[in-house]
Amino acid sequence: MRVSVIGGSSVSSAQYDLAREVGKVLAERGHTVVCGGMGGIMEAVCRGATNAGGTTVGILPSDDLSAANPYVSTPIATGLGHARNVLVPMNGEAVIAIAGSGGTLSEMGFARVYDRPVAGLGSHDLPWVEPVETPTEAVEHVETACSSSRE
Amino acid sequence: MRVSVIGGSSVSSAQYDLAREVGKVLAERGHTVVCGGMGGIMEAVCRGATNAGGTTVGILPSDDLSAANPYVSTPIATGLGHARNVLVPMNGEAVIAIAGSGGTLSEMGFARVYDRPVAGLGSHDLPWVEPVETPTEAVEHVETACSSSRE
Amino acid sequence: MRVSVIGGSSVSSAQYDLAREVGKVLAERGHTVVCGGMGGIMEAVCRGATNAGGTTVGILPSDDLSAANPYVSTPIATGLGHARNVLVPMNGEAVIAIAGSGGTLSEMGFARVYDRPVAGLGSHDLPWVEPVETPTEAVEHVETACSSSRE
Amino acid sequence: MRVSVIGGSSVSSAQYDLAREVGKVLAERGHTVVCGGMGGIMEAVCRGATNAGGTTVGILPSDDLSAANPYVSTPIATGLGHARNVLVPMNGEAVIAIAGSGGTLSEMGFARVYDRPVAGLGSHDLPWVEPVETPTEAVEHVETACSSSRE
Repeated sequence: MRVSVIGGSSVSSAQYDLAREVGKVLAERGHTVVCGGMGGIMEAVCRGATNAGGTTVGILPSDDLSAANPYVSTPIATGLGHARNVLVPMNGEAVIAIAGSGGTLSEMGFARVYDRPVAGLGSHDLPWVEPVETPTEAVEHVETACSSSRE
Repeated sequence: MRVSVIGGSSVSSAQYDLAREVGKVLAERGHTVVCGGMGGIMEAVCRGATNAGGTTVGILPSDDLSAANPYVSTPIATGLGHARNVLVPMNGEAVIAIAGSGGTLSEMGFARVYDRPVAGLGSHDLPWVEPVETPTEAVEHVETACSSSRE
Repeated sequence: MRVSVIGGSSVSSAQYDLAREVGKVLAERGHTVVCGGMGGIMEAVCRGATNAGGTTVGILPSDDLSAANPYVSTPIATGLGHARNVLVPMNGEAVIAIAGSGGTLSEMGFARVYDRPVAGLGSHDLPWVEPVETPTEAVEHVETACSSSRE
Repeated sequence: MRVSVIGGSSVSSAQYDLAREVGKVLAERGHTVVCGGMGGIMEAVCRGATNAGGTTVGILPSDDLSAANPYVSTPIATGLGHARNVLVPMNGEAVIAIAGSGGTLSEMGFARVYDRPVAGLGSHDLPWVEPVETPTEAVEHVETACSSSRE
């Protein structure tokens, strides 16, 4: 399935490594990564996924495809600026949030609007977000949440 | 100044009354209300402002101007659905949040992105939101925050 | 009623004067101008309308309200770039097109999508555009088209 | 390269066949189709491309991925309504227009804004559109136009 991964462009190296591992686990389990296509968490998750043979969709704020990080396999330019944030959770069946500030929070709000299950790794504490400890737990949470919603 | 008021379309009557009072105080102090133009908190704040002689801008998710609540003096249709949420904090100098769920949270995230001061009346608890107790306190908080940022 | 006026930001002085006259006639007849809020035709029509005591709404591509030309009475920031073009015809009951290139053409296409009558002053020749010779003819055409559609 | 194919959802069977052939030629020459993801011309071009082993990106007006026609390999939901039109030419290096009405015209306007070469098969007659007679001519025109712009 498609899983949207959200998080900021300014990250610590520990957060970068965490996101890279999330990308790797998603790709190994056959999921496609959807993200905002830029740097920081977005680059890290695409890098982890791509290196593990996965596919990544990057939905960019810019109208310029070349703004995508080098690990995006399908860049989508929007020219919408921050309004593109709504497209990120909309295009995944579930969401994994890693750290992040205002932009990430807007995406967590839209995840709620679109009723997407959300796993949070060190991200905002919200009633509809399941706090998890590891990348594998994050992926397992969204897999389980989506399979139950299909039953 | 323009103040964006955010909050959901499903509200209790206590929340509705609170939002109506916020609209009244804003209008009495000469501020213009910006909101999402629909029902619930959005209708209440426009109603309070309009009845006090104020001006209200409603930025609608729909492409149909007639979707605006009857207390919107300047409706703006967008046809953007939930992506219009980013326009609400963008078009005010400050934000007052009243209760709300996912949509409101997305707007609180965008308020952060655009560096708008936010006062919260029974809304989400976030580091950049000042919790206040009354409509007057909410308005005073955003007035003070904006006047300091101009100095 | 609200009339959307569309046209480019690069204009000759003859086109600027024409747009200014369109704004003047619209204001004198009690109509509100909706436009893209920037320079060229947009500035000219707002200037003509404002100087005649009218009201103008400028729907900006930028996320910065201060990007509006000085004759916009109600600026709306969008941050959507060229995607904001659809909002211009959507927010008027009818459209007057003056000269223009690609951006104006996109707005003429959206005018068709939203079934708005269009009067064209030296603009693109399209089956749904009524070519007119003067500002007064342009305004009279859209007034007549809107009043017949209401009968 | 990516080529955006634009045209309406209401089409004659001759236009449908033409679009299908455009999709086939694009796929055979290794190009990816970008389109609006819905019915009519959009379905036909995706069908032709998919049956020839190609890849197709469908940028949808809806917020629901399942609205895509069955020949879209990468659907992108936007929830933006007609504002998504700008994303279609933005995401291709060149544009092929087939018939079409207002929506297609808006995309031809945006193609000009983003300086994309456009080949037209029975579409609107505009100064920046090269009228062509056959699908192969259309594809050859955009290939040549893009390779010259790279020199």
